[in-house]
Amino acid sequence: MDVNNEKSNRLRLDYTGMMKNIFNPQGWTKEKLAAMQPQLTEAHNSLRIQREQGGLDFSKLLTEMECLLPSLVEYANELTCNFDNFVILGIGGSALGPLAIQQALNPYYYNELCLSQNPKRPRLYVVDNIDPDRFTDLLRVIDLEKTIFNVITKSGATSETMAQFMIIRDILRQNCGDDYTKHIVVTTDKEKGNLVPMIRAEGYRSWIIPAGIGGRFSELTPVGLLPAAVCGIDVYGLLQGALEMDKWIRESESVLTNPAQLSAVLSYLAWQEGKNISVFMPYADSLKTFSDWYAQLWAESLGKRVNRQGKEVFTGQTPVKALGVTDQHSQVQLYTEGPADKVVTFLTIEKFSSDCLIPYDKSLPDDIKFLGGHSLGELLQAEQNATEYALSLAKRQHRKIILPVLNACTVGQLLLLLMWETAYMGELLDINTFNQPGVEEGKIGTFALMGREGFETRKHEIEEYAKTFYVLE
Amino acid sequence: MDVNNEKSNRLRLDYTGMMKNIFNPQGWTKEKLAAMQPQLTEAHNSLRIQREQGGLDFSKLLTEMECLLPSLVEYANELTCNFDNFVILGIGGSALGPLAIQQALNPYYYNELCLSQNPKRPRLYVVDNIDPDRFTDLLRVIDLEKTIFNVITKSGATSETMAQFMIIRDILRQNCGDDYTKHIVVTTDKEKGNLVPMIRAEGYRSWIIPAGIGGRFSELTPVGLLPAAVCGIDVYGLLQGALEMDKWIRESESVLTNPAQLSAVLSYLAWQEGKNISVFMPYADSLKTFSDWYAQLWAESLGKRVNRQGKEVFTGQTPVKALGVTDQHSQVQLYTEGPADKVVTFLTIEKFSSDCLIPYDKSLPDDIKFLGGHSLGELLQAEQNATEYALSLAKRQHRKIILPVLNACTVGQLLLLLMWETAYMGELLDINTFNQPGVEEGKIGTFALMGREGFETRKHEIEEYAKTFYVLE
Repeated sequence: MDVNNEKSNRLRLDYTGMMKNIFNPQGWTKEKLAAMQPQLTEAHNSLRIQREQGGLDFSKLLTEMECLLPSLVEYANELTCNFDNFVILGIGGSALGPLAIQQALNPYYYNELCLSQNPKRPRLYVVDNIDPDRFTDLLRVIDLEKTIFNVITKSGATSETMAQFMIIRDILRQNCGDDYTKHIVVTTDKEKGNLVPMIRAEGYRSWIIPAGIGGRFSELTPVGLLPAAVCGIDVYGLLQGALEMDKWIRESESVLTNPAQLSAVLSYLAWQEGKNISVFMPYADSLKTFSDWYAQLWAESLGKRVNRQGKEVFTGQTPVKALGVTDQHSQVQLYTEGPADKVVTFLTIEKFSSDCLIPYDKSLPDDIKFLGGHSLGELLQAEQNATEYALSLAKRQHRKIILPVLNACTVGQLLLLLMWETAYMGELLDINTFNQPGVEEGKIGTFALMGREGFETRKHEIEEYAKTFYVLE
Repeated sequence: MDVNNEKSNRLRLDYTGMMKNIFNPQGWTKEKLAAMQPQLTEAHNSLRIQREQGGLDFSKLLTEMECLLPSLVEYANELTCNFDNFVILGIGGSALGPLAIQQALNPYYYNELCLSQNPKRPRLYVVDNIDPDRFTDLLRVIDLEKTIFNVITKSGATSETMAQFMIIRDILRQNCGDDYTKHIVVTTDKEKGNLVPMIRAEGYRSWIIPAGIGGRFSELTPVGLLPAAVCGIDVYGLLQGALEMDKWIRESESVLTNPAQLSAVLSYLAWQEGKNISVFMPYADSLKTFSDWYAQLWAESLGKRVNRQGKEVFTGQTPVKALGVTDQHSQVQLYTEGPADKVVTFLTIEKFSSDCLIPYDKSLPDDIKFLGGHSLGELLQAEQNATEYALSLAKRQHRKIILPVLNACTVGQLLLLLMWETAYMGELLDINTFNQPGVEEGKIGTFALMGREGFETRKHEIEEYAKTFYVLE
């Protein structure tokens, strides 16, 4: 790879807004960050050992995933010839990653444009809920004969995805006869789970989710790579960017050179100082759904009742999704004047692919005439800088991830940066970053309420609980 | 109106999850709520007086808005004959309300379905940002000849909207000649602002935003009613529902009978007990963007530095948008196991318009077979109840707004309930609910950075500030 190109594509972190400055004398100093180095070095070593001993597959298997690309892209290209619609049945990480990457790297109105692309690309639908009205509407807009469904669930036991799949399988059988299996591609575990015997018995095409990668870390496996390839996204670039960031992080040992250490320590110190809210605020419509992916990663990884010693800690910053400049007219009033309970992370793109000039009209009043002769991109940039400035004036902490351009390589870097930041943060908090024990109760409750055998006691308990109620009607 | 129908359409509030129960002995009692009655009565009287003296136009002008409907619907129907696309240029309240109502009351894939509707309806695009890539993409998917642009800004000084408008006006002039004014309809103040002389000089069709109604309270003015009518939404039903809820709230004097008093006091007590996060979690895809509308209302109204005596209070709960069941696989881990720093407000629809049966297949393993014979709607309901139960088990507070069905009338009620809850909450906090002084600094900063005359000092200041910086690259 061209060294200059690599350099010009590289993400930067601007953490000025976290530090002591003329407006915010309570901001931090480099010494304060450096004082965290022993803890960070411990985290760094712990993560290195975990990776060597078989953990952290989101990083470790990147090269293996890269080797998968030729066959995956070949298959994706086959699909684009045969189908007009690619429908994902999945929820959580199986939906959020594909959605984020699609919006980041394809046109905003992709589904409306895709049939006129060259080569032609299928429309993408990500059905990440079980809302019956939406499901019914979906069936009104797709032609089943021209649709392939990608069922994504590692365990094959995700109620929502399996319910969708059972409905779709039935409809396909009725409409497409024996050929119905050609309309289904499964992304699941290699050996375990409910879908493995079904793949064997019914003959679906399938792709593997590596055993050691959980939903929220799975975007750079076939979970995300297959839909991206189908929609014409440069999956090689994604992995190249991911590998670059992975290398940078694993090889830098100090907080001021390692972007994940730096990000994590900024988050950790803010959390220690009582900032329980983390606002993620890209200044680009294309990164809006990236916030949803980040919100799962941050919330599910760090929201934990106990630490690794089993002590109750009730930890976890709450991620908040915002969008610049849109939410300046919605949330920034609160961010500047409300409580100092949050840190804002801006995401900015230095150079957009296109721009629109605002025409100059001397007959207009002063408070709009000044816009003329500038471009939308300049206005967006000015507003982003002005918002940073307003937050600084209000002594509110903020930081910024800068993408020189938005492309597969920078998005790949961003994915890995945030995954690693989360891993370091988990180490600093001394928790298990990779499990999600708290969702179990909800699952058991659902089994009980749906009348699954063996869950009668829980059903009775819920009914008892529901007997006391307070309703205003 | 049919009394039974009115009753069956009426919203209900279930606040069991806030109260003392078998799982949460720290929950509240009715006595605790009743003890707040003096403050609530004071708030009730204060709001009544403000309304009598010319404030609270969001409530006071509902009848006037209802009178506007025949002419507004007539105009909307004209547009549907002449145009295939209705594009809103607006930001903040000018975009969030129209988006929320469109998603709530029209099919999920409306834009893909609308040309086959009977009567034919225009596609709706809400351009609520100045991202140059998205703006360029928009121009690729719409046929200008068949497009009408609705410019929405009360002051005519909103930089983002006016920048968009200036670009579009220029393009229309080039493409449509003298007829270009037919492609523009303006929603703005009656007398003040930049757009009034332009309407006179260039001859645009226009609709009025009443002077006393700010952006986040403007959905039931032509801001929201015109797009809704164009998209075939029952605007009469919206206002009917709004008027019903308005009456209920104004005529009920006590916390246990007045839904806005009750909602506000639940929020207020939670805030007093340190819960600085308010999660808004509808269990319906159709209400997803309603959360964005709510987030502006709550954040911008209540996020305030000073109270009405000018004392610094730095108040304001941070609204968080979540979606059931989707975010059970993203946020609920944090909500159950993380800190007790939030209250979750669920929104549920008792009866969806459609449903899908999950087929039963006895060959499937137990952990998915149990789904068979139930419907998606049942599964969604069970999961919502199970999540409530899981939160209760974890001693986390939650409440629920129940919509018997989702229609224009219940959505109208919901709008007014949340507006009034916000107004009561502002009274309890003793702040000005209706201003947004904190956005000024950002505006001034933008003027400075865009080189507007008269803002040179600020520009210099920002440049000075930017001289100290910390960047990792």
